[in-house]
Amino acid sequence: MNLELVTIGTELLLGFTVDTNGAEIARALSAIGVRIVRRTSVSDSPDAIRTAVRDALERTGAVLTTGGLGPTHDDISKKVVAELFGMPLDFDEEVWRNLVERFARLGRTPVASNRGQAEVPRGATLLRNRWGTAPGLWLEAPLGAEAGAPRGLVIMLPGVPGEMRKLVEHEVAPRLAERAAGAVVRSRLVRTTGIPESTLAERLGDVEREIAPLTLAYLPGLEGVDLRLSAWELRPEEADRRLTAAAALLRERGGEQVYGEGDADLAALVLDAARARGARLATAESCTGGIVGARLTEIPGSSDVYVGGVVCYSDELKTALLGVEPALIQAHGAVSEPVAVAMAAGAVERLGADATVSVTGIAGPAGGSEAKPVGTIWIGVAVDGRVEARHILLPRDRHDIRARAAQMALFFLLRRLRSGS
Amino acid sequence: MNLELVTIGTELLLGFTVDTNGAEIARALSAIGVRIVRRTSVSDSPDAIRTAVRDALERTGAVLTTGGLGPTHDDISKKVVAELFGMPLDFDEEVWRNLVERFARLGRTPVASNRGQAEVPRGATLLRNRWGTAPGLWLEAPLGAEAGAPRGLVIMLPGVPGEMRKLVEHEVAPRLAERAAGAVVRSRLVRTTGIPESTLAERLGDVEREIAPLTLAYLPGLEGVDLRLSAWELRPEEADRRLTAAAALLRERGGEQVYGEGDADLAALVLDAARARGARLATAESCTGGIVGARLTEIPGSSDVYVGGVVCYSDELKTALLGVEPALIQAHGAVSEPVAVAMAAGAVERLGADATVSVTGIAGPAGGSEAKPVGTIWIGVAVDGRVEARHILLPRDRHDIRARAAQMALFFLLRRLRSGS
Repeated sequence: MNLELVTIGTELLLGFTVDTNGAEIARALSAIGVRIVRRTSVSDSPDAIRTAVRDALERTGAVLTTGGLGPTHDDISKKVVAELFGMPLDFDEEVWRNLVERFARLGRTPVASNRGQAEVPRGATLLRNRWGTAPGLWLEAPLGAEAGAPRGLVIMLPGVPGEMRKLVEHEVAPRLAERAAGAVVRSRLVRTTGIPESTLAERLGDVEREIAPLTLAYLPGLEGVDLRLSAWELRPEEADRRLTAAAALLRERGGEQVYGEGDADLAALVLDAARARGARLATAESCTGGIVGARLTEIPGSSDVYVGGVVCYSDELKTALLGVEPALIQAHGAVSEPVAVAMAAGAVERLGADATVSVTGIAGPAGGSEAKPVGTIWIGVAVDGRVEARHILLPRDRHDIRARAAQMALFFLLRRLRSGS
Repeated sequence: MNLELVTIGTELLLGFTVDTNGAEIARALSAIGVRIVRRTSVSDSPDAIRTAVRDALERTGAVLTTGGLGPTHDDISKKVVAELFGMPLDFDEEVWRNLVERFARLGRTPVASNRGQAEVPRGATLLRNRWGTAPGLWLEAPLGAEAGAPRGLVIMLPGVPGEMRKLVEHEVAPRLAERAAGAVVRSRLVRTTGIPESTLAERLGDVEREIAPLTLAYLPGLEGVDLRLSAWELRPEEADRRLTAAAALLRERGGEQVYGEGDADLAALVLDAARARGARLATAESCTGGIVGARLTEIPGSSDVYVGGVVCYSDELKTALLGVEPALIQAHGAVSEPVAVAMAAGAVERLGADATVSVTGIAGPAGGSEAKPVGTIWIGVAVDGRVEARHILLPRDRHDIRARAAQMALFFLLRRLRSGS
């Protein structure tokens, strides 16, 4: 089934609140086979709410709203939708009793404005909210609707994320799953790094035709280009089977730049690969300033493999902590192949590791030259005594360059750890 | 002026991508007096894009879109909008030349699919994109539009957040500001750290009544509790005057836990404070694994103050790199006051710094005990020969504990650097 989301709240239009509710609901409902065809955010004004809900009903026949069910006077969603359907509001004693009891447990007393929360459009189904004061509503027109009123389904949920989430899980998803009847929307992510989007697209060739009816989306980010495969409105078993086959095809065509699926993290893969060969890891960072170490240690249990690292931001510390010869720096510059090699080799020796990675580069905004522009990075990798360095040139600003450099450092290290030498 | 946002991308409807672009654009445009009256997200399908843009033009007369300007064939926004306006697409040699040059700088060659990025709807104004390959577009119908075509303004931006942001700032906001003229919505952020939300609220007292009609929001996060002051639909001068006064009041009441305004970053403030006293900085990290170093080096120009650091994740490296006595670790444990002190002092000596900060703690999920539960952190600070350590206990999971520990390390270091001893 198709459905539109309408999130209500002036904050959303001012941009002070990021609409995470919308994304969360979309994920939860897609997974049970409901297709979200449009999302709209409008302010707390009656006109805006009425127009958005009415248009969505006309287009799609089913709409889920969040927000505007609270006690303050900008909470008017319920009133507007009830009017639209021609449903009068009835005061519901049980909702009121629940609210009074809930307040009592928190040592509070309801105020006059809370009474409005106990009003229910006649004919609506209450979605019980055990996590807050405003129940959700399930309105299906033309249940008692006036002639000329729109037809369709309106589901109304509070905008508080914790309450919304619980109501979707316990009340909305089970009811919608029955109607969606079997077909689901499922996705799988295949992660790549170290290859530009357009080159990747060439390499994958006419894969989109081959995997149809699955669809493929390219998602470039600081960690690389992710490939999202989606199965739309298939039976669960067929969706899974096709996704598995398509992911295998992407891995095959994508080559070694494909490093994992789902939420695969290069840092975790590096730790696994080091663990598998019994290697102790260390890092030697200049321009990334600790990002590689921070990413490795973000993974629980990293301490059994990762011994530590140095952030040798100044040239003096490259010498003092890693034994890089000052003459080498003077001859080639700190951002150079010999220095990247010396840093990685020095980390093996000084930190007592079997596998190390070094990063030295120009993150900008200052420090670039014609020969070594901003974005110039050398990455050294030492594994079991063999050291080599690779050069890359990265686009954009300091933040992006550093994040991408750290990702590439992990990628080069992973390849060496996996290649067996 | 009123304007609608239309964000384009099937990903947004699946909920895999949170629509941060929408929020960011809304903030930037509200600040110059443009009122965002509706936000819509639609899939990459031509029908959905056409309907959303046409409806928005009919309702509001001005629309800003993001997404669908890239090189892959789900990037169809430009084509659809040009068709809607009856504008043919012309191949633009200059856009193409810029793209080829940009690729050349990165050592890449454009492929066939990139050529579509150089097509421009006839009569559109190009919004030059120096941060990526796809220029933004400013289309104003009925410039050469067919009879019956919709009228109004369509601004099209790429969906890549970094490019979108720059184009809004440099190309879109200045053009729209001319048309907007009038009441604005403005905000100011006052940043605090090291104080819980409820304690802060008590300290601030009845400030919300005192600052009316401005409003105050508490925004707790990993860096502390931010306080957002907002002025709603005031004239620019009055908004700024009231915001300045209210921010001063918050700083006065909030005490030393208030560390800055806006996008103030403790790492930048630490660098400034060190620079002011001519101190060279170094870091010694265990449980934060490089986060403090990464935060300091994220700031451009950090290399004139920050010399580097060590990530001594293993006990052996605490000894080898910082000279922490093994007996000390054995007697007190690696997470203890004496070890934090020895790490900070060792960093002064071994890294040749005047001011250092050390962090040792239990980030979890494993490694906690009754005496030292997960979240136990010791932070050592050495400034001009005087070393001291402080204990904190942080809530939640590994990620949060590490981020908060890094923030507190910077906070303690800043206080010492500013206090003059």
